[in-house]
Amino acid sequence: MSALTNESEEHLPVRTVAIVGGTHGNERSGAELVRLWTERPELVRRPGLEVSCFMGNPAAVEANRRYLERDLNRCFSPDVLAGKGDSLEERRARELNELIGPRGSDKAPDLCLDLHNTSSNMGLTVIFNYLDHFTRKLVAHLAANEPKARLYYQPVDNSTSEFLPSLGKHDLTIEAGPQHHGTLCADLHVRMEAMVHEMLDFCAAWNRPGFVEPPKRELEIFTDLKNIDYPRDEQGRVSAMIHPGVDGMDYCELPAGAPLFLTFDGKIVWNPETESVWPLFVNEQAYYEKGVAMTLTKKSVVEW
Amino acid sequence: MSALTNESEEHLPVRTVAIVGGTHGNERSGAELVRLWTERPELVRRPGLEVSCFMGNPAAVEANRRYLERDLNRCFSPDVLAGKGDSLEERRARELNELIGPRGSDKAPDLCLDLHNTSSNMGLTVIFNYLDHFTRKLVAHLAANEPKARLYYQPVDNSTSEFLPSLGKHDLTIEAGPQHHGTLCADLHVRMEAMVHEMLDFCAAWNRPGFVEPPKRELEIFTDLKNIDYPRDEQGRVSAMIHPGVDGMDYCELPAGAPLFLTFDGKIVWNPETESVWPLFVNEQAYYEKGVAMTLTKKSVVEW
Repeated sequence: MSALTNESEEHLPVRTVAIVGGTHGNERSGAELVRLWTERPELVRRPGLEVSCFMGNPAAVEANRRYLERDLNRCFSPDVLAGKGDSLEERRARELNELIGPRGSDKAPDLCLDLHNTSSNMGLTVIFNYLDHFTRKLVAHLAANEPKARLYYQPVDNSTSEFLPSLGKHDLTIEAGPQHHGTLCADLHVRMEAMVHEMLDFCAAWNRPGFVEPPKRELEIFTDLKNIDYPRDEQGRVSAMIHPGVDGMDYCELPAGAPLFLTFDGKIVWNPETESVWPLFVNEQAYYEKGVAMTLTKKSVVEW
Repeated sequence: MSALTNESEEHLPVRTVAIVGGTHGNERSGAELVRLWTERPELVRRPGLEVSCFMGNPAAVEANRRYLERDLNRCFSPDVLAGKGDSLEERRARELNELIGPRGSDKAPDLCLDLHNTSSNMGLTVIFNYLDHFTRKLVAHLAANEPKARLYYQPVDNSTSEFLPSLGKHDLTIEAGPQHHGTLCADLHVRMEAMVHEMLDFCAAWNRPGFVEPPKRELEIFTDLKNIDYPRDEQGRVSAMIHPGVDGMDYCELPAGAPLFLTFDGKIVWNPETESVWPLFVNEQAYYEKGVAMTLTKKSVVEW
């Protein structure tokens, strides 16, 4: 049992919520949800909440591609927000910082939610970067209402983050997969939609006078350790595939010394870690170009 | 029981085989197999056979994209082969026609095999356009050695086909899925590799004096009926997803009047067909731009 907390239990209201979809143009669940909610804002209206929806990268959504010139969800570094870089996505990051943020200012929304899809078998994954009281309670609520949800803790400092949802005072990312980029899987889509509604309901309840926090529950949290790349040949070319025993096995224990990759001529590459790890983002299509075969995490049990 | 035959039982030798991978640059199984076999041609050598391997679209493979300017596997029409069109892929089609074919000439290989991946749940699918004696026997052999193989008959005339494998006197396509484009699924990769080896073994045996044809077997054949598109709004934008009861259900019976699509605001669109159909290429990522949500087929049982 791990504490995994770093802040007080103080109960502060969450009044403004920004929802972003289409940050990657070929991750279509979020793009279609934001499109729907922009046309019919009453669907995401809640008493005491101010909810705004944003299409992250409209040009990439139009092209049904992850990005046109640079990955938008790596464009929120202080440098870029301060004016560095002139790609379409760097300019869009500064625009979004004005529209949604500015990051770190009083004007920034209390919560920024970013909707993503992955080609990995990650089901509905809630990604959070902070362990403050509100985030812990929100995450516990979402897990209670979607029993198959997975919780991925990626410690990143908001002020130096490259990620879009860092524009909010609190941030959250929902990943839904496996979904082929550029397509829609109705089952995942409907479950992501339901999770966003749960999140909004929770925020509205949280602000109500006399809100009683739900009792603590045990939760499995997967904490980021590191990314690992594919084996490569002398020319830097990928020379192996994810081993069939690991492919699609996101969030499953990978013991030290287990098969990890399979080379194109049929040889096994073994897991060099000395302790068990829990891989996720296994075989994510968009990460081949980033040199990431999977992310390794540690599993812990918390009481939130 | 349907005959589905259109030719004599004459036994003609098959001496030259062309194997093509990377016709679509992000369908990586074929690209990696052709890369391996080009480096180690002894792996595909067979007595009495002349086997050549070709990378269909090297520039697209390098970019890990389906194509750069135009879908190469729609560039083999007589017009394009005669010189029409100047896109990278149209020029490459003419190059391949010289390298592999020319189509319709004596120089053309006896068999041209094209290796593809799909994001649809099609397992290992053998696509064939002819019902001549050799093709029927080859298809029956492949099905006997990969019991989960699916057989898709798409009647297309070789001389007017847009597809690459029409460069051969006989042609065959293997589709392996579901695999996210741009990635590799080791399990599918290994099974595709095994199927190509089965095919080569069969061709070598076929040419041997005294070859005894295997006894006839019952097989399920799925014959192309038509493609259907997604529902669209007034602006032509996709307005619904494949219904969860159909998504991933390639080769399963879809009764008349069954749920077919689910709109973004939660309404069901029903199957308008008046008889059962068997969909395939369901939710194929690359077909969104072609206006194809799935291909409908008819199932029949043959004795080949």
